[in-house]
Amino acid sequence: MAGLLMIRQDWEAAAKQQLDGLAKPPGSLGRLETLAVDICRIQQTLSPRVDQRRLVIFAADHGVTAEGVSAWPSAVTAAVRDTVVAGGAASSVLATVHHTECLVIDVGVLTAANQLNSGLVTARVRSGTRNLLVEPALTPEEFEQAVAIGQRAAEDAAANGMQVVIGGEIGIGNTTAASLVIALATGVVPRLVVGRGAGADDATWARKLAVVTMVWERYRTLWQTAPREVIPAVCGLEIAALAGFFIAAAARGLTIVVDGVVTTAALLIAEELAPRTRAQCLAAHAGAEPGHRVALEALRLRPYLDGWELRLGEGTGGLLLLPLMDAAVAMLTQMTTLAAVQQQLASQG
Amino acid sequence: MAGLLMIRQDWEAAAKQQLDGLAKPPGSLGRLETLAVDICRIQQTLSPRVDQRRLVIFAADHGVTAEGVSAWPSAVTAAVRDTVVAGGAASSVLATVHHTECLVIDVGVLTAANQLNSGLVTARVRSGTRNLLVEPALTPEEFEQAVAIGQRAAEDAAANGMQVVIGGEIGIGNTTAASLVIALATGVVPRLVVGRGAGADDATWARKLAVVTMVWERYRTLWQTAPREVIPAVCGLEIAALAGFFIAAAARGLTIVVDGVVTTAALLIAEELAPRTRAQCLAAHAGAEPGHRVALEALRLRPYLDGWELRLGEGTGGLLLLPLMDAAVAMLTQMTTLAAVQQQLASQG
Repeated sequence: MAGLLMIRQDWEAAAKQQLDGLAKPPGSLGRLETLAVDICRIQQTLSPRVDQRRLVIFAADHGVTAEGVSAWPSAVTAAVRDTVVAGGAASSVLATVHHTECLVIDVGVLTAANQLNSGLVTARVRSGTRNLLVEPALTPEEFEQAVAIGQRAAEDAAANGMQVVIGGEIGIGNTTAASLVIALATGVVPRLVVGRGAGADDATWARKLAVVTMVWERYRTLWQTAPREVIPAVCGLEIAALAGFFIAAAARGLTIVVDGVVTTAALLIAEELAPRTRAQCLAAHAGAEPGHRVALEALRLRPYLDGWELRLGEGTGGLLLLPLMDAAVAMLTQMTTLAAVQQQLASQG
Repeated sequence: MAGLLMIRQDWEAAAKQQLDGLAKPPGSLGRLETLAVDICRIQQTLSPRVDQRRLVIFAADHGVTAEGVSAWPSAVTAAVRDTVVAGGAASSVLATVHHTECLVIDVGVLTAANQLNSGLVTARVRSGTRNLLVEPALTPEEFEQAVAIGQRAAEDAAANGMQVVIGGEIGIGNTTAASLVIALATGVVPRLVVGRGAGADDATWARKLAVVTMVWERYRTLWQTAPREVIPAVCGLEIAALAGFFIAAAARGLTIVVDGVVTTAALLIAEELAPRTRAQCLAAHAGAEPGHRVALEALRLRPYLDGWELRLGEGTGGLLLLPLMDAAVAMLTQMTTLAAVQQQLASQG
């Protein structure tokens, strides 16, 4: 592990050295240079590639919606799943414009899709989670099944030549589960974590906070000693699948782009199950949910798009970082060197 | 003028209405939605286009470099000009990756280019400005000539079917002139405006601040009553050309992407000469120079890429906004509507 750490730091230093040798004042491209360094460190090369990329969106429903924690009914999960597959959702449109494959995996939406489509994989563990307020959301076996589906999705991406993967999610009620995971994993109280998800009003938000606080009180002591026992009880199927997706993508050396509050909660779980998964990750943005920033800070990931107030999910924030990654890699690999310009100056002088 | 204002506000409202009718929670794409609204307002359509775009980089030298205000010698201006034209500069590489034409116009570099290239236009008003500390940098006639070159460049862009233009600049010493323009135009004292440009050390920065402060004291009263008399005295040739470029681009209805501190200073001049030029502009980022944010606030332009700490110039920051504009337009024009999804839900329910 120490050896791997050394090597990563060496790639970071080598990338900085290469950037400082390019025809520009050192550091003058700011965060674009940081992005290039991050990609070199993650891919362990000075010739990184980010052009083969896939967004995998995991979709599932949440029993906790019975408590009135969401602005939208559970039926919307299936509708969004079908809209993404049909190509009309925000994620489908942004994936096309930024040259990214888009795949949806149904790991537990209440209603199964009624038609076959090459953009949809059906791997349903169960029809939605149980209501986490009244009983554990998932059994340990169900949790493991969902994790394994995510892992296979990452292995398939690697086998198909992807260099970059984005995790996305669809699931009415899933910011409730994500807030709970973040509060438990970071030790930050629910009041500072729970937000309005896809548009909760004051009353809905108050119910959501009450639910998260009650379940957080139930598990916070056990989390200290046995987090893996708690995780299935508060998790979502798509969150578990995302955790598996991140773990296997990191193990395969892929570059992972993390999107919003729900995928970042999944990364906290991944980090718990497989430490240093986060070292393969780039945080695309800090979204509108307060818990998102809390989770990113705990993971020591600095978001690239700050102040964009995104709260849609589906991987949309992750997709927006891709062309900036293209720019970072092009800068690193295609610019003239300072030495070449100096030689030219000397020959003219 | 009131009529035009009404129409613009109507387009803004219409764009918001269209966005709220798409298959996503209202406002859930945050700043990406703001960007779409801005583009609709600027282009006065709900079917905006941003795919035909050109970066025009104006290059010139500055006599004030004799005062030791810059980290780099004036010879670097010609070297950067030639590197951009040869395709190896940061701006050339980013323009290629983001599908943008790139054109350099030499309006007064000390050394003329010694070869013909289709990416370079030679329209030299004079070889660099005079030293603005000891005499006016430009005569009113020279200033007007540079402005006219910029105007013709915008008219050429419009005639060639461009929808979007970015203004860029090359000019060792030009953050000194830009700081002076910003301090005079905004009333903010030089100490809060002057930065380190392309990498000034403490001593260089102190000289730069002293120069800006002395010239600012000389002109600040005259600026209150007759800013147009002052502008040529403190301006650069590339800054004057950029002002003309922005004025004519705005008059032609083009969408203007503003880059760093120098181009934003040019926009302050443009706004002085032709009020409401700023209404056609998008601010790509807030750069590392303190004066950049001061100028953007005076222009009431909120930067999209915040915290990116860019300080290269050449239009590089502007180029980074383009793929996000692509995303904003695709979202606005290609997503499924909420009504279509609701119809689908009703037919299944």
